[in-house]
Amino acid sequence: MGNDAITPREKDFSQWYLDVIKVAELADHSPVRGCMVIRPNGYAIWEKIQAGLDRRIKETGHQNAYFPLFIPESFLKKEAQHVEGFSPELAVVTIGGGKTLEEPLVVRPTSETIIYSMFSKWVNSYRDLPLLINQWANVVRWEMRTRLFLRTTEFLWQEGHTCHTTEAEAEEEVLRILDLYADFVENEMAVPVLRGLKSDNERFAGALRTWSIEAMMQDGKALQAGTSHNLGQNFSVPFNVRYQDQQSQMQYAWMTSWGVSTRLVGALIMAHSDDAGLICPPRLAPLGAVIVPIWSSDEDKAAVLPMAQTIADALRPFTGVKVDDREQMRPGSKYAEWEQRGIPIRIEVGPKDVAKAQCVMVRRDTRKKEFVPIDGIANAVRAEHEQMQRDLFQRALDFRTTHTREIDTWDEFVAWCGAAQGFGLAHWCGDSGCEAKVKEETKVTIRNRPIEYVQGTKKAEPGRCIKCNGASAYPVYWGIAY
Amino acid sequence: MGNDAITPREKDFSQWYLDVIKVAELADHSPVRGCMVIRPNGYAIWEKIQAGLDRRIKETGHQNAYFPLFIPESFLKKEAQHVEGFSPELAVVTIGGGKTLEEPLVVRPTSETIIYSMFSKWVNSYRDLPLLINQWANVVRWEMRTRLFLRTTEFLWQEGHTCHTTEAEAEEEVLRILDLYADFVENEMAVPVLRGLKSDNERFAGALRTWSIEAMMQDGKALQAGTSHNLGQNFSVPFNVRYQDQQSQMQYAWMTSWGVSTRLVGALIMAHSDDAGLICPPRLAPLGAVIVPIWSSDEDKAAVLPMAQTIADALRPFTGVKVDDREQMRPGSKYAEWEQRGIPIRIEVGPKDVAKAQCVMVRRDTRKKEFVPIDGIANAVRAEHEQMQRDLFQRALDFRTTHTREIDTWDEFVAWCGAAQGFGLAHWCGDSGCEAKVKEETKVTIRNRPIEYVQGTKKAEPGRCIKCNGASAYPVYWGIAY
Repeated sequence: MGNDAITPREKDFSQWYLDVIKVAELADHSPVRGCMVIRPNGYAIWEKIQAGLDRRIKETGHQNAYFPLFIPESFLKKEAQHVEGFSPELAVVTIGGGKTLEEPLVVRPTSETIIYSMFSKWVNSYRDLPLLINQWANVVRWEMRTRLFLRTTEFLWQEGHTCHTTEAEAEEEVLRILDLYADFVENEMAVPVLRGLKSDNERFAGALRTWSIEAMMQDGKALQAGTSHNLGQNFSVPFNVRYQDQQSQMQYAWMTSWGVSTRLVGALIMAHSDDAGLICPPRLAPLGAVIVPIWSSDEDKAAVLPMAQTIADALRPFTGVKVDDREQMRPGSKYAEWEQRGIPIRIEVGPKDVAKAQCVMVRRDTRKKEFVPIDGIANAVRAEHEQMQRDLFQRALDFRTTHTREIDTWDEFVAWCGAAQGFGLAHWCGDSGCEAKVKEETKVTIRNRPIEYVQGTKKAEPGRCIKCNGASAYPVYWGIAY
Repeated sequence: MGNDAITPREKDFSQWYLDVIKVAELADHSPVRGCMVIRPNGYAIWEKIQAGLDRRIKETGHQNAYFPLFIPESFLKKEAQHVEGFSPELAVVTIGGGKTLEEPLVVRPTSETIIYSMFSKWVNSYRDLPLLINQWANVVRWEMRTRLFLRTTEFLWQEGHTCHTTEAEAEEEVLRILDLYADFVENEMAVPVLRGLKSDNERFAGALRTWSIEAMMQDGKALQAGTSHNLGQNFSVPFNVRYQDQQSQMQYAWMTSWGVSTRLVGALIMAHSDDAGLICPPRLAPLGAVIVPIWSSDEDKAAVLPMAQTIADALRPFTGVKVDDREQMRPGSKYAEWEQRGIPIRIEVGPKDVAKAQCVMVRRDTRKKEFVPIDGIANAVRAEHEQMQRDLFQRALDFRTTHTREIDTWDEFVAWCGAAQGFGLAHWCGDSGCEAKVKEETKVTIRNRPIEYVQGTKKAEPGRCIKCNGASAYPVYWGIAY
């Protein structure tokens, strides 16, 4: 499993992560502070993520649109919590066309304010609602400590923005999207997630309520993979997003916003990969299979190359495929390179295989090797893809299960923090001060309140707050977050 | 053909253009100076454009990647012509995270400099070439006079950037892309284009040579629809993009860049639409057909609605389709609305049609009405789409032909300028000063030198420059440009 170019996970997880990104050529640091370059191999995964999400977003009735990159500074100030949350992170354009601007323009850190200034023009009657809009865009937040994919000054994302006639309908939308995100991340990325409600401390700046999906990485840390916000009327009032209801009364709209970003690529890397490089789930792999023909003479080459092409043609209808026919490179070096890049299936064809009308199929994650008859190769690869997709999910789920602990007392909590592995399920009184103290002393924060408890589909399990011993209706998830 | 909400083309072409955008809900002005909002109907067309181009760009071996929005100011200054060309148009970030930046960051007006700073890391050996990269991104140019889609401070585009070992290979790439653009614009957008070489005055800032495709709008003006630049070694030298050749010598790479933008949406509007609203070519129409069921009683409704759904199901496999079953809206109002939005085919189904197992099919551009049996509706719509696609192209081509004139003398040229209709094919000595004088006196510029003459596939036709009477090898295209 070793690979000289990659630091083992056990030794240094952070360095391992950067090494995998480097050898798989997923991204690169840029000369611009905190900004990354997404290289073709990484961008191809992002395109697969976009396609899977975009389909789901459209199927649920949303339409894509595009709004300006720049936001007048005054817009951000219209919602008090919003500006407080984002002010420290802003990049500001003060010069345009050689002149100092009268009003500085903020490079969007998120687009609520600029989008809702347009919604106020577009929404007039209850007939205009619900308004269901999504945007694919770049955003900028001036982060102090950056990390490829996970936290960069500029990142790519989608942000949904919707208007509704009632609070209940807005909450339905928020939960529909939470389920949409969970469905995508679990079924396409093969990463299990916990759905739940964020605490007030971790809520989006300007929201009534923020729901999240939380994933566990192989180092036991939590990664918030997506958020869905019920904004209530916090933005419709200052931005005057109003509609005339069926009784001809003017009403403020109920709004939501929600987003996922290129940090999902980071989640994918940290959830599945190993010390040999990237492991990409088949459904998100731009290349589902690579075929390495093996020859040591021109005669062999003339036999194996057409066979490699035949196999490629058989696979192409359902997956990306490449024949690696590079000269002057040993097959072993090719294997290592494709392993680093996380291609799910490798197929080897040598002269002996051609004679037997077979090939060797090797799975990236398990390294299971199998001889497969050429005429059954398409079905074999398809079946192995499906099995690998299921196995990756199950492995990640098992990992999360074995790294999640119920914790009853503060002493136990502190001991667990020392180990800092995984999620703790522990009681909390609901007080922001208690949560802040825990964070200060241990770096651990509340990831979310399990949706089953919040919605009452699971019976409350009263207990005592691990920090203050106050009453608690149910335990919540704790962890150290990326 | 009249429509109260739309100014007729004859009366005021500019206002007509804005009116079509408004009634078709393609875009909207934003509160940010010169920036537009692309509304869902407009963005859906852009997504179709992206899909058609992206497929062609990938089929020719290019890979997508993503580079930072911000460019250190010093990078832009490394190529003298480049900085001179773009300096007046820059938006500059001077504050980040609450602090004044040591080096201001320019919001990319185009990405040559930031991308080539990365290429200098990635390119080491001749084995790394050709390097064929494309980026989909937003860019910002501080324009003084803006116009929805055609010229906005921020716009969306793709920009290709490639490195090659020889000048000839770079020129091949530049021409391959020019053909790719022409193929897309002619076959998907149904807009005929003239391929050719830009004059020095109109060349990209920093390029050796710029090729363009030029389209004619219904007011006779020219719209530059795409450009492809041979950058020579103008950027590889200052950005140190070097490779070791097969003889172990270090060589500077030969580079190209090329792009098309959201202005293509403007071209589509102005090439085809009429006084009733947008006309969208079927291949780029997000909705290829709309079905309007007609009823005046609950009984009728129970008969026509299922039939409308049956038709929709038959069309869905090959085109976007919508059943307009809105209550309390007369069919006539629905027809007008879908005409404004440019949906290629409208299908009307009333109770009598249901009884006869037929429907009425109406084509947007010709308004040709036809009764079609329900069981043949899919083939009928598909055939009509194909015919409409061909007809739109032919109509635009005929328009261009009748609005293109050969002009031999300066007097003739000046008289033609007064009419300001279409392209003039007239001789030019090749001198930038001559071109500048013509522009100053008439607003007319050289659109391009026809590729057939430049490449010598068409025999030279010597003549005399209309301005200075100097020698000229072949005539060039002149026009007033958007």
